[in-house]
Amino acid sequence: MQLLQERIIKDGIVKDGDILKVDSFLNHQIDIDLYDKIGAEFKRLFLGKNINKILTIEASGIGLACVTAQHFHVPVVFAKKTLSKNLDGETYLSSVYSYTHQKNYDVQVEKKFLTKDDRILIIDDFLARGKALLGLIDIVEQSGASLIGAGIVIEKGFQEGGAIIRNMGVDVKSLAIIDSMENGKIVFRNL
Amino acid sequence: MQLLQERIIKDGIVKDGDILKVDSFLNHQIDIDLYDKIGAEFKRLFLGKNINKILTIEASGIGLACVTAQHFHVPVVFAKKTLSKNLDGETYLSSVYSYTHQKNYDVQVEKKFLTKDDRILIIDDFLARGKALLGLIDIVEQSGASLIGAGIVIEKGFQEGGAIIRNMGVDVKSLAIIDSMENGKIVFRNL
Repeated sequence: MQLLQERIIKDGIVKDGDILKVDSFLNHQIDIDLYDKIGAEFKRLFLGKNINKILTIEASGIGLACVTAQHFHVPVVFAKKTLSKNLDGETYLSSVYSYTHQKNYDVQVEKKFLTKDDRILIIDDFLARGKALLGLIDIVEQSGASLIGAGIVIEKGFQEGGAIIRNMGVDVKSLAIIDSMENGKIVFRNL
Repeated sequence: MQLLQERIIKDGIVKDGDILKVDSFLNHQIDIDLYDKIGAEFKRLFLGKNINKILTIEASGIGLACVTAQHFHVPVVFAKKTLSKNLDGETYLSSVYSYTHQKNYDVQVEKKFLTKDDRILIIDDFLARGKALLGLIDIVEQSGASLIGAGIVIEKGFQEGGAIIRNMGVDVKSLAIIDSMENGKIVFRNL
C-alpha cells in the first residue's frame, strides 16, 4: 500500500533493537483518514470471502478493527489481556509472550462471541515474531470458527512471524512488509 | 439516545455490585453500526465547537473514539496504561484508581501529541465514579490544551463521577444515564 509506505518513511522512527515507532499516526496518535484507507484496502484484499466477524487484540488493534469493520459491515470482537470481574463467562484463553513487555500474558475471548459458524478475519497493527497473532489463531481454532485470513498493517519481514504463520496455511496479507531497517534505512518488500 | 437505551434494555445484563455488562455490543463484541450512530450523535452534540483532537483511554475507548473521529475528521490520541520500551518520549502522566481491577495504574500520553493549541473532546464508554475521566482531564490540563467536553456512552448516574466532573465545569454529555438498576431493573434519566 503505497500511501502507507510513504507515511512510514515520512513519520516512522527507527530505533535500536529493531523498533519502528509509528506512534504519531498508527498506534498512539491515530490518523483516522489513513485508518479509513487501510480499512478499505483490507476490504479489497478479502473481497468475496464472506467474512462475518473481525477479531483483534487490545489495545492498538481495536481502532483498526473497528474502522475496517465499517467497510465489511460486520461486528468486531477484541481479545482481552486482563482478567476482570466483568469478564465472567467461559472464555477461550491463549498464553502469549510479549517481547515489548518481556512477559507472558493471557488473552481471552468469551466463548459466546466466537462460534463454529463464524468466518473470521483477524486484524492487527504489527506482525513481527508472531506471538500475538498465534494466540488469536489458537483462540479461533479452539472455537471451531473458520479462519479466513489475517490483515496486518506493518509486517517486519526480517523476523520470523510471517513465515511461520503463512507456513501454517493462514492467508496473511500485510499492507507493508519491511525487509530491513538497518542503520535507520527502511527497505520495503515489493508486494 | 433512544436506540442506545433500547439496546441496553435488550442486551445489557445487570449483575451484583452495580455491574452492567454490555459486552455483547459495546466493549468486548462491538456492534459497529451502533458505534457509527454513537459517533454521529457525539458530532451532533458537540457541533460547532472546533474540536481538533479526540482523546480516549485504552482499551475499550479506542474503537468508540476512532469511529467518532470519522465524524469530526480529526485525529485520535489514546492514553496508554502500560509502560513499554516503545514509549520513550516525555509523557504527561496521571495515576488512576480502577475499581474494576482494584488497583492504581498510570495513564500516559506522549507530550508531543497534546499541545496548548489543541481543543480536546474526551470520549469513553463508561462514566461511573469518574476516576479514568479525571485522569484524562488531568492530562489535558497538564498539556495546556482546551478541554471542550467529554462524550460518554453510558453514565451510572447513581455514582458520583458525573456530578463531580460537571461541578468542575466540564461539559459532560452522556448518551444514556442510568439512575438506578436495583433488582436488575434499569431506570434511565430523562435526557
